[in-house]
Amino acid sequence: MFVDEDNITDLAVERWATAHSPRLGELMTALVRHLHAFSREVRLTEDEWMAAIEWLTAAGRISDDKRQELILTSDVLGLSTLVVQLNNEFTPRATPATVLGPFHIDGSPTAPHGFDMSDGIPGTPLFFTGRVTDTEGKPLANAVLDVWQADTEGAYEAQLPEIDEARLRAKYRTREDGTYCIRTIAPRGYAIPMDGPVGDLMRRTDISHFRPAHVHFLIDEPGYRKLITHLFQADSAYLDSDVVFGTKDALIIPFTERPAGTAPDGRTLEVPYLHAEYDFVLQPR
Amino acid sequence: MFVDEDNITDLAVERWATAHSPRLGELMTALVRHLHAFSREVRLTEDEWMAAIEWLTAAGRISDDKRQELILTSDVLGLSTLVVQLNNEFTPRATPATVLGPFHIDGSPTAPHGFDMSDGIPGTPLFFTGRVTDTEGKPLANAVLDVWQADTEGAYEAQLPEIDEARLRAKYRTREDGTYCIRTIAPRGYAIPMDGPVGDLMRRTDISHFRPAHVHFLIDEPGYRKLITHLFQADSAYLDSDVVFGTKDALIIPFTERPAGTAPDGRTLEVPYLHAEYDFVLQPR
Repeated sequence: MFVDEDNITDLAVERWATAHSPRLGELMTALVRHLHAFSREVRLTEDEWMAAIEWLTAAGRISDDKRQELILTSDVLGLSTLVVQLNNEFTPRATPATVLGPFHIDGSPTAPHGFDMSDGIPGTPLFFTGRVTDTEGKPLANAVLDVWQADTEGAYEAQLPEIDEARLRAKYRTREDGTYCIRTIAPRGYAIPMDGPVGDLMRRTDISHFRPAHVHFLIDEPGYRKLITHLFQADSAYLDSDVVFGTKDALIIPFTERPAGTAPDGRTLEVPYLHAEYDFVLQPR
Repeated sequence: MFVDEDNITDLAVERWATAHSPRLGELMTALVRHLHAFSREVRLTEDEWMAAIEWLTAAGRISDDKRQELILTSDVLGLSTLVVQLNNEFTPRATPATVLGPFHIDGSPTAPHGFDMSDGIPGTPLFFTGRVTDTEGKPLANAVLDVWQADTEGAYEAQLPEIDEARLRAKYRTREDGTYCIRTIAPRGYAIPMDGPVGDLMRRTDISHFRPAHVHFLIDEPGYRKLITHLFQADSAYLDSDVVFGTKDALIIPFTERPAGTAPDGRTLEVPYLHAEYDFVLQPR
């Protein structure tokens, strides 16, 4: 009738199975079983249980509209990448997905072909050019590429206070032939925020705190599977040890050094720049 | 080299195994494996993942020094009770442990034999009397019983703003013969706080929100296993459906109605009262 070590899991599963939605019941009963199995397996002590409660509380309390410590937690545990994999099983011909990360901002401004989304922020000029196509190679006209990245200090707009205008983010459209041209500055590898509960935990391990240099892309066209991905710089540090497990072979491309002169957008550049070429391939629904 | 659905769990386990303390490595690698197994089993969607992130964040953010939504979460998932069971395997002769709950306050004032810890708060007078002994029946002199409970509205001191003095909590000492005498008011069953993330989730199930009427006891004597427990009123509602899975047969005792007259503390009571008798049995270390 009452609980003991043997029946507590079954009793809790039985209760949560009363969820009104079958899917919620499935999720909660599986969560109870796995949480209990974890606790039994490690024979969790009362002090460890309390430390976990306090850690999760601190992670929630440090999170706000600029910072999401629980997404970061999911990232460093490999959970975010697993969930991306479970939900984005594309054909090998399509561009693979990777983690969204906590720094995407909705409603970036629409930018013309070749627009410089770095807008005077210091850094090496970088151009991305290529096409957006379907898995048969058919170009997609007017497809929107939602692009965002960190500055050379590793700071995203979402992490900075009092930014009035879009910073290192913009939406580009492909032309009739499916081509796009993005101008920005070269990203650099950066450490995840280490001043919160995730940092406290990471410092108690030998895990690298860094992400390799990358730019984020989101393409969501009617009739195609939504694509959330990165492009990584081929010679970046940390490609093998990305702290959020986001790196994939097919997303690593050369950022080729070019001398000053005519840039991919047709204009003349006074300084050397980098050029990365990539065709995004969307999978039809 | 890079992640996919098949290798992500092994890669994450490998990284967290670098924890400097072997126990942290054991905990984190088991956590990664169970979190991943849960996500694979239910094929967690990206929307569900985000809902879980937001739910945990809200639970952390609503918690403060008066309220602990993540302990409540652990309670309603049966996890708190499981952890109590794993860490308090007493002999059947000893008083069993149950959950601490989030409302214990350290440093309650020491009260004399028979002291009324309700101190004028309205309710039916209730006396607890009995002994504290070891598992051989030997009385423990000067053992401290740290006692706390909710008022008849279900409110603990920790939940109320601006309380200057200890409210419905005190520390009693046993006399030379191991006997104790506590005066308070009868507790009532109450609902857990339903105005936060836990409440939002519970309302999507048929799970009862209530706890049966109980009083908390903590006895921590040198040479004995620490005992954290409740005593439950035998005819209380919700005994079979305690929302935090805390009820145990051996902790349910009659609160017997007595007419006005001489009370267990020897004084005269003008009103009828309740009397509960219980011997706490501590397990030697």
